[in-house]
Amino acid sequence: MSWVESSIMARRGVAAGRAGRRHEITEAAQGTYHYVYGPFASPVLTVEPGDVISCETHDAFEGRILHETDRPSEILNFPFLNPQNGPIYVNGAERGDCLAVHIHSIRPRGPQPVGTTCVIPEFGGLVGTGATALLNSPLPERVKKLEVTVEGGVKWSDTITLPYQPFIGTIGTSPQIEAISSLVPDYYGGNMDLPDVAPGSVIYLPVNVPGALLFLGDCHATQGDGELCGVALEHPTHTVVQVDLIKGWTLAWPRLETADFFMTIGSGRPMEDAARIAYRELVRWMAAEFGFDELDAYMLLTQCGRVRLGNMVDPKYTLGASILKSIVGEARV
Amino acid sequence: MSWVESSIMARRGVAAGRAGRRHEITEAAQGTYHYVYGPFASPVLTVEPGDVISCETHDAFEGRILHETDRPSEILNFPFLNPQNGPIYVNGAERGDCLAVHIHSIRPRGPQPVGTTCVIPEFGGLVGTGATALLNSPLPERVKKLEVTVEGGVKWSDTITLPYQPFIGTIGTSPQIEAISSLVPDYYGGNMDLPDVAPGSVIYLPVNVPGALLFLGDCHATQGDGELCGVALEHPTHTVVQVDLIKGWTLAWPRLETADFFMTIGSGRPMEDAARIAYRELVRWMAAEFGFDELDAYMLLTQCGRVRLGNMVDPKYTLGASILKSIVGEARV
Amino acid sequence: MSWVESSIMARRGVAAGRAGRRHEITEAAQGTYHYVYGPFASPVLTVEPGDVISCETHDAFEGRILHETDRPSEILNFPFLNPQNGPIYVNGAERGDCLAVHIHSIRPRGPQPVGTTCVIPEFGGLVGTGATALLNSPLPERVKKLEVTVEGGVKWSDTITLPYQPFIGTIGTSPQIEAISSLVPDYYGGNMDLPDVAPGSVIYLPVNVPGALLFLGDCHATQGDGELCGVALEHPTHTVVQVDLIKGWTLAWPRLETADFFMTIGSGRPMEDAARIAYRELVRWMAAEFGFDELDAYMLLTQCGRVRLGNMVDPKYTLGASILKSIVGEARV
Amino acid sequence: MSWVESSIMARRGVAAGRAGRRHEITEAAQGTYHYVYGPFASPVLTVEPGDVISCETHDAFEGRILHETDRPSEILNFPFLNPQNGPIYVNGAERGDCLAVHIHSIRPRGPQPVGTTCVIPEFGGLVGTGATALLNSPLPERVKKLEVTVEGGVKWSDTITLPYQPFIGTIGTSPQIEAISSLVPDYYGGNMDLPDVAPGSVIYLPVNVPGALLFLGDCHATQGDGELCGVALEHPTHTVVQVDLIKGWTLAWPRLETADFFMTIGSGRPMEDAARIAYRELVRWMAAEFGFDELDAYMLLTQCGRVRLGNMVDPKYTLGASILKSIVGEARV
Repeated sequence: MSWVESSIMARRGVAAGRAGRRHEITEAAQGTYHYVYGPFASPVLTVEPGDVISCETHDAFEGRILHETDRPSEILNFPFLNPQNGPIYVNGAERGDCLAVHIHSIRPRGPQPVGTTCVIPEFGGLVGTGATALLNSPLPERVKKLEVTVEGGVKWSDTITLPYQPFIGTIGTSPQIEAISSLVPDYYGGNMDLPDVAPGSVIYLPVNVPGALLFLGDCHATQGDGELCGVALEHPTHTVVQVDLIKGWTLAWPRLETADFFMTIGSGRPMEDAARIAYRELVRWMAAEFGFDELDAYMLLTQCGRVRLGNMVDPKYTLGASILKSIVGEARV
Repeated sequence: MSWVESSIMARRGVAAGRAGRRHEITEAAQGTYHYVYGPFASPVLTVEPGDVISCETHDAFEGRILHETDRPSEILNFPFLNPQNGPIYVNGAERGDCLAVHIHSIRPRGPQPVGTTCVIPEFGGLVGTGATALLNSPLPERVKKLEVTVEGGVKWSDTITLPYQPFIGTIGTSPQIEAISSLVPDYYGGNMDLPDVAPGSVIYLPVNVPGALLFLGDCHATQGDGELCGVALEHPTHTVVQVDLIKGWTLAWPRLETADFFMTIGSGRPMEDAARIAYRELVRWMAAEFGFDELDAYMLLTQCGRVRLGNMVDPKYTLGASILKSIVGEARV
Repeated sequence: MSWVESSIMARRGVAAGRAGRRHEITEAAQGTYHYVYGPFASPVLTVEPGDVISCETHDAFEGRILHETDRPSEILNFPFLNPQNGPIYVNGAERGDCLAVHIHSIRPRGPQPVGTTCVIPEFGGLVGTGATALLNSPLPERVKKLEVTVEGGVKWSDTITLPYQPFIGTIGTSPQIEAISSLVPDYYGGNMDLPDVAPGSVIYLPVNVPGALLFLGDCHATQGDGELCGVALEHPTHTVVQVDLIKGWTLAWPRLETADFFMTIGSGRPMEDAARIAYRELVRWMAAEFGFDELDAYMLLTQCGRVRLGNMVDPKYTLGASILKSIVGEARV
Repeated sequence: MSWVESSIMARRGVAAGRAGRRHEITEAAQGTYHYVYGPFASPVLTVEPGDVISCETHDAFEGRILHETDRPSEILNFPFLNPQNGPIYVNGAERGDCLAVHIHSIRPRGPQPVGTTCVIPEFGGLVGTGATALLNSPLPERVKKLEVTVEGGVKWSDTITLPYQPFIGTIGTSPQIEAISSLVPDYYGGNMDLPDVAPGSVIYLPVNVPGALLFLGDCHATQGDGELCGVALEHPTHTVVQVDLIKGWTLAWPRLETADFFMTIGSGRPMEDAARIAYRELVRWMAAEFGFDELDAYMLLTQCGRVRLGNMVDPKYTLGASILKSIVGEARV
């Protein structure tokens, strides 16, 4: 029996975590990909809680960077970056509910070399950027195209091969009245670039509008903590997710569950504000559903909380704070 | 002769800074006020460069806080805050142009006490907030209603009267593809809360979409640097602005001109990033149009640049960096 | 009658603000200048409250940058920078007291060109630094030597002359048990680089050790807000100050008084933390000594507080928050 | 054969990683513990490279918090906190060298309950503090005293026991001319509160003064990422370390080696600056000693770098950035 059967999704979901109908969003079905998370786009698909959706995701550059001699600064057309599948309308979802998304699988899609990373001028964690505006000259551009397979991993060089550890870089629901660039992570999810959003996990997202309007894309074949230069191992994929709906579970920020831990996810600048959000949400969660008082939870997390840095390159930085299920047990609600 | 006749607006504007037709956006004409800056709303008015528009602005609370016994946390309905007039479509404006807005006047509107300030839980510069998420208990709520007149100023208490120094708290153009809360300041303007955006000055805004789509609102009767508790002296107004259009002047961030100085405006978090943006824009401007090399400009601003803190409470902080015209002279373009 | 006669220094000082004996700390008398603020150095002078001290200060480079062809990176020997006069032992000063320093005058000292500014690699507000560590190449070095006189001001170029507006860049008392680089500003003062610390003003500093141990140096002929490239108009000076002692007035951070306003000074990173410190200190001061309750003070400062950015380049950033005497009146203690 | 025999310490150390004489610093031998890292204290011990030192460390409160009813705000006497053993003078160490410290073991010391954690007013990661100065009321104080044993772990409550995972919270060398509070982490080490500084690892520290002057203390029985409330599981210990000396290996910031990875450690505010320091040091290290060019290293770390958050509560935040030895191999120097 998978741990998922005792997950919050299974215990509270409208579909009780059981898989329903299967849908496909091919490139053709998607048609226009989206560059904002918002309520102004028409749903590309309507599903029931429990339904399973297979998406043909593009890479963050919509496949435009083809050769190592390409110059991203000439090819990329800001803000038309990070194309998203969706929105998917989930029947019954209302503001104040929670959308659970169980990630089934991610597989590379298309001809090799399917993976891309690059250094883009004035973007990244160790350079001056549009947000951290400096007078230094930018780094030179560089593109790397890499073969990526499930079994063979990411072939970085003759001597270095990294395991294939894919995850969804950008996933979330629509904000209530805003339409925000898919480059941004925030309370509704978005471009969190957090490696824990991986096959096997369940991510919980706040619902802000009727139908939730789920978007996703930007899958990474692997990524280090912080996504240092700003461009992970980008690749187009077949990504399969199962959605469920938890009525009346109102989240302020995304949460995540795996076999081993519960995580809360915060995004903000400066980075300590992202960490504060993640940890405060975890304290509050432990107080609301795990039987702690807030001060207890605060003191216990001081001894055993874990932090994962998602990105230190996007308009907001993202961190996840987590605690082991072996310590807190299951949620009591 | 007013300095405005030699302003950048007058020298480069399509209307050469000359006032054209006069329009009015009354509450009735506005109908629904807006809570996002974006391209999805229909223009409430279309104007030519040079046209003058008188707007009936609401206060940031849309007039809902009426008594000192009111509780903002019960009355306010986030994110439906900071209602904006507009959008105003300016004929001929295209992405890459600059919209010049000369602020003619601001006058209080409506029955006394017309001014409102308050302490709102988990909002403000000296408290834990949603962005700087802490476990401390929030401050108590408090509302102050104040009489505000042009001549009599702001009657704070029996002993303290502040001069009426009104400005536009929120003004900007539409982003290209996003629709962003009117609570946010960014590259297109928005909720900058910068007291220099006052009658007599000209603000220059980047045009991102056809027609520019000008929004404005949130006028303050006075405000300290930083808008410390998050709520300035909010009041509904008659605000009169003249728009002009500078073709092909492509700004990355808003700029401002007064009789005495040129200013660039940056918004970001942490606060040093807002300062960096503002100062880098000013360095670049001095290099592009005032005959300095970048290093010269950088070194000279070290000796005589001035910084004004707009807000330290909004989703991004805003600062203006300026240099005296008596030092740099007029722009040479 | 000067406003100083009704200053806090005059009203509460042991010497009642009256000038006492005059002392001189020439270069020879100083001997070794100091590069840390701490309790481990022997006093170069012992004075009584009220005494007036004339110091021969060095510039921040101890006079080693002589020509525009000099390369700071070769000449400067970190951490032996920013040499300080002192420490001056003030009789009667004990931990918990306040040292008041009334700045009488600052005059350039030595042969022309007496002023120096420069761009130093990996230092400054618009570049990657040791603290904001990036991979970008540093800017080229550049040195400017300038003639500076009291009457003629700062001759920047053939067309630009800046007024002589000198102030003390670095001034403070010894920490209790630490010895901190003179490049750092903190609760005891230090390298605040705040232009309001100018002749005519009184700065109030916390006393942390017996005798207070006053250090000072790093006088600037003029400086813009933020000291953008990190090097203001540095120059050696004759600087004259009068000290006084306020028993039992325990400050957490430096304060400043001028004819027109009261200011609190905070230093920290990120910049908003410096602003928070300055404003919280001002709120608390208004509550403790001006008859406001904290919430009142917080709301009033929202309407009329003023912020001055000192530096955005030192290990901590410095801001001053102030309120006009015309609004709050005199302190009631 | 232990990995240590092929460590950098073993390959480059003066003692080639071999253990030499054994010394003991008992409480009595230590006498006065130290509250600053600096060159002004006399060595308590002089050793040769290779020597092994067993220290009786105090907990961060010097054992003064004895009961759960104690009030830290009354007992603790800032800045006399975080007492340190040392300084230990290492013969032959000169500025520009590297001090290697191999941590052999940490064991609890003294009568049970030997462990202490607490909530201290205006200190911690989710509250307003002296540095992030706010008007909110502080949290209530709370003390927890816990039984801690090597085998039994940390008995948190009837249902929760945490494993004993001890590490050295504060360790470092003397700065060159400063004496800095032992509460601060910086380029010389200090209060990093990074759980990887654990038995089995080797930490590499820059030498700034003759003899290096090693300080250490503040051992934690366990700690979560970020040390959220500011007080980990503090306990007095017997801590055993072996020192070695690497001549001419000049580090800008501490580094760490374990069986599995190489880590660089950065401390700063805001948190992204600590991350930038750690990652830039790692990029530079990979370029200097592992055969990468800087851009390669930057791009590879984007895919596989790991970040550990040490503390988000101290005057500077600390993060470690690491890369697996299985990816980069051994250093080639």
